[in-house]
Parts: sequence; C-alpha cells; structure tokens
Amino acid sequence: MADVARRAGVSMATASRALSNHPHVAAETRRRVLAAAEQLSYVISPEASRLAGGTTGRVAVVVPHLSRWFFATLLDGLESVLREADLDVLLYHVGDADDRRDFFHRLPARRKVDAVVVLGMPVADGERERLESMGVHIVAAGGQVENYPYVSIDDGEAGRQAVDHLLLLKHRRIGMIAAVDPTEPGWPANPGRSRAYHEALAAAGLPADPGLVVTVPWGGLSGADAMARLLSLREPPTAVYAHSDEVAFGAIHTLRRAGLRIPGDMSVVGIDDHPMAELADLTTVAQPVREQGTAAGRLLLSLLSGAETGGGLTVPTRLVVRGSTAPPRR
Amino acid sequence: MADVARRAGVSMATASRALSNHPHVAAETRRRVLAAAEQLSYVISPEASRLAGGTTGRVAVVVPHLSRWFFATLLDGLESVLREADLDVLLYHVGDADDRRDFFHRLPARRKVDAVVVLGMPVADGERERLESMGVHIVAAGGQVENYPYVSIDDGEAGRQAVDHLLLLKHRRIGMIAAVDPTEPGWPANPGRSRAYHEALAAAGLPADPGLVVTVPWGGLSGADAMARLLSLREPPTAVYAHSDEVAFGAIHTLRRAGLRIPGDMSVVGIDDHPMAELADLTTVAQPVREQGTAAGRLLLSLLSGAETGGGLTVPTRLVVRGSTAPPRR
Repeated sequence: MADVARRAGVSMATASRALSNHPHVAAETRRRVLAAAEQLSYVISPEASRLAGGTTGRVAVVVPHLSRWFFATLLDGLESVLREADLDVLLYHVGDADDRRDFFHRLPARRKVDAVVVLGMPVADGERERLESMGVHIVAAGGQVENYPYVSIDDGEAGRQAVDHLLLLKHRRIGMIAAVDPTEPGWPANPGRSRAYHEALAAAGLPADPGLVVTVPWGGLSGADAMARLLSLREPPTAVYAHSDEVAFGAIHTLRRAGLRIPGDMSVVGIDDHPMAELADLTTVAQPVREQGTAAGRLLLSLLSGAETGGGLTVPTRLVVRGSTAPPRR
Repeated sequence: MADVARRAGVSMATASRALSNHPHVAAETRRRVLAAAEQLSYVISPEASRLAGGTTGRVAVVVPHLSRWFFATLLDGLESVLREADLDVLLYHVGDADDRRDFFHRLPARRKVDAVVVLGMPVADGERERLESMGVHIVAAGGQVENYPYVSIDDGEAGRQAVDHLLLLKHRRIGMIAAVDPTEPGWPANPGRSRAYHEALAAAGLPADPGLVVTVPWGGLSGADAMARLLSLREPPTAVYAHSDEVAFGAIHTLRRAGLRIPGDMSVVGIDDHPMAELADLTTVAQPVREQGTAAGRLLLSLLSGAETGGGLTVPTRLVVRGSTAPPRR
C-alpha cells in the first residue's frame, strides 16, 4: 500500500480509500491510484475490503452425510447458485449430534459467514436464535423444518404416492421398511413417510399390523436385512414400501438371493429416483434433489438481499412406474 | 476497538497489538485489554488477525463432479482431516474445462486460501506455477498427477488385477468398457486402466481385437449401452472388464434384460468397490476412496507446516471376488 501511495503521489489513507471505492475520492486521484496499483500488481485483499462492508461473502453449508448421493446432490445444486452469485461455500461436515452442537457453538463467535444452509438436518431453537441475533441467516434444504425458510419435498405426500400405488394394484398386505439415522439416537424414522403409510392403509380400510413395519438405518445393506426379516414372517407381505431407493435396492438383493421374483412374488417401491433406480428397474417416487439445492440457494440470495420470505418452499414429487411393481398373485 | 482501548486506558494501536498477540505488549497491558474486550464481548475477527499472519486458514477444494460417489467420498475424507486441523474448506465445483480455467485464473488474485486440493482432475503447468509463486500449495487426490504431490491408486495395477482375474478363470475373449469424461473433450479414457488391459492380454499371448473395446462416458446408463454394443458383436466376449463399478452396474442391467446369466453367460468385473457393489454381487478391484481423501489432507498439513514432500503417495487396491465372475462355459 505504501508503494502504491508513493507511486501515485498520494497519502496512504487516500490510496486506501481509492482502492476500496470510497466515495470521497476525486476521479483523477482514483485513476492515478488504480494505475499505480496495477503497475505494482497490487492485489486488493477481499478480506480487508469485505471487513469494512460487514459481510464475509461466504456461506456455511452444513452436511450430515457428505458421501451419500442425496446430500452430495443437494450440495451440487446449492453450490452452483452460490458460486454464480460470487459467494464462497464453506463446507462443514457434521457427522453426529456432537459435531452439530460444536459447529453451532463456534460459528457465531468467529463470524465467518453471512449465512448457514443446513442440508437435511435440524437446528435447535436456541442455536437458530443465536445465529439470527448476529445477523446470520439460516436456510434448510432437503428437509422440512419449522421456524425458518426451507426447501423440501412433502414427505407425507411422497409416502402417500408410493403406498397408494401399491393399494391401487390391489395389494392388501403391504410392508414398510422405515429408515432412521443411527448417528441421531432418539430420532424417529422419517415421520412424514411413516405416517403416510399408516394413513393410507387406514383410508383403505386395512388393519394395522405392526409386524409388517421394520425400522433400520438408511442404506442398502440394512434394507437387505429388513427384507430378510419381512420374509421370515409367518405371512410375508406381497409388496414393500421402502423409505428410500437405497433401502429398496437392498430389499431387492435379498429377494433375488431368496430366489423370489420381482414383481411376481413381491412388489417393491422406493422414494428418490436415485441414479441407480432406472438400472434396477425400480418403481419409485421421484424427488428433484439437485433442484432443492438450487432453490435453497435462490431463497438464500433473496434473504441476503433483504427480502422477507414466508416459510418454505415445497417441491413436488411424482410416481415413476417401472418393473418392480405389479398386482399380487395371491 | 475504540471502546476496548478506552475501557482499558490504552491507545487503539496498543489495544490492537494486544488482541493480535503482538510480542511487544506488556503482560499487564495485554491482560487489561483482554479483560476490556471480554467485558464488551469484542469478537476478534479471524479475518483481521489472519491477514496479519499472512495465512487465511482456508483450503480450496476443487471438484469436477460433486454428486458422484467417488468425488463426494474423497471430499468426505479430506474435509475430516482439514476440519480436525481447524482449517476451513472452501468448496469449488468446476464442471468443465472452462470452469477450471476460470477458477485458476481468479483464485490467485483473490488470495483467499493457503492451498488448493484438486480431486481427480488435472492442473495445467502454468496455473500450477502461478499458484506456487504466490505461496499457494497444491495437492491432488484421487488422481495421479506429475509435478505435484498426489494421493492416488495405481490405475495400471488396478486394471491389471481385474483383467488378470478374468485370465486366471481362463477367459480368452475379454471385452473392455473404457470410460471417458464427456466434459473433457480430447481426454482419453483412463489411460492406466486402458493400458493394463492391452498389456495383460499381450502378456497372456492373446490377440488384440479393437472390436472388444467400447469407450463411453463414466456412468451406469452408458455402461448399459456399451454392453449392448458388445452383445451385438458377431462373437461377443465371455467376460467384460469395466473401468468402474457404476459402468459395470449398467452392463449387468443390459445382460439381465437380454436374459443372459451372470456369470454363467458372461463374467463382469469392475473397479471401485462402490457401496452398491456388494448388493449387486459384483466382483471388483476395491480402492480405498475415503482414505485417499484423508491421506491427501495429511499430506497438505505437512506441506503447510513447511515439510518437503517427495512426489506422491500410491495407495493399494485389491481384488474382491463376488458372484459376477466364473470360468467361461465355452
């Protein structure tokens, strides 16, 4: 800075004002300073200039499971919008409840970001208030959360689409493989997707049979275990509704190993439309995952520009019928 | 800062020096300033204090395909090590060659990070020199690159393990589904994995048949197309070596559709040990993906601490035999 000021023949204070686009600098002076800076390859520190403006130009994105398709795809969409707006993405992988507490505890004191986007996980009320009091916005993507702006599917609607499809095919004995997050002890299986199952069966006048519901962690291998448990029932279901496609892939694996045909012996429906679902010929309820990320990015940009946003944005899901579902033979 | 200085009864310059741990501040003065800052809940800006030290505390991670399992899993491992070291991860998704050029063009001028980790993509020599001249370190993970430190598998060795397995089963007509990145026109299919195929066949005294090699973009759907092309040969192969598990999943899908049995009619081997490989009963060459990310993180930490590192680190791969390979019937 001293070199720039000397070369431009101005004081350091003036050179600094000229480089930070301060209004009270004569045009000719600014021109001289910029020319001097260019000659000296002076790099304007974004840190220093941002500090003056009170914003960091950065957004923290908090992800509970980075290597899983759903979260990585949300992040993909979100990052594309934020980068387009010249905001930097600071990535925080918080693997469990302790990580999450630590993140929310440390972030405000550091004041490193203008906003936090949480992908598919909750934020406690106290943490939210703390961030808001420091002017840090919060947006959720891929999960529906009360009290702050979100972009998500309607899990109840998605579950209903899956179970109604099986009911329409005249299945009467329908199992559910419900998924929980093992890093979050005490969390229930996805409540919207579970409730949809019970409500759809009740609406169809079918009795509730707790033996037809198996709850396992998210993921393919546990879907395989869950299907084995359903097959060991005295009277197995004729169709199974899985909380996600990955869980359904595991269920299909067990059926194949057992020599059962899909959909002849058992229909299977998932939720997601995972990239592998088409290859597995899996009937599923498709959710637009990348689009939830981009929509959350746009929601955040409007918040940062000072707009008020009401609640959240629910994106639609739709049934994709493939070869894993058919009417029951029995 | 003015409030802190006033309350501590010192000049602003002294208060600033005390808060930034400058050595030339009397212990008693420092104590008074810190107490005043604490009373006023003064938050030391990490930006400002980092600027003085010349480091940003941030690492840029550059990813070409964020939503793909391989890249997301590398990122998962890398982030865990950097976060443990209290470094922040700035995420940059560069979808194609233009994005990449833009990233490397803009980054040095901003000087936002202390280092760049590139995941599975190249950096041109000029870009590398530019970053190095500004004191920005570069490390590569998940790809083997000359001229700067990397953590990767030996693609040639992995390919050799896959093809040798098929040769040991006495397959003599072996196809290869080679994968290219469609966002990188002009790039060849993974060179190490391709060369391994040709070398292994030559070592076994088998003739080269260009018709047995199909080159498609990475991914399941193109693997399905590639297998259809191999099946349309006058004399199809008895076994297929796919450059990745996702490509192999697609190939298996086509075989199933065609009513062919695996491994009875056709053996299939992949590379990766993708989370779905166990469910698909796919024989594959496993590579430790998350571990390549963590190793790259540790390599970077040692570079940032001033250590010299020689070249790169190659992590071993190993054959995982499952149900998709067997001796040929013909």
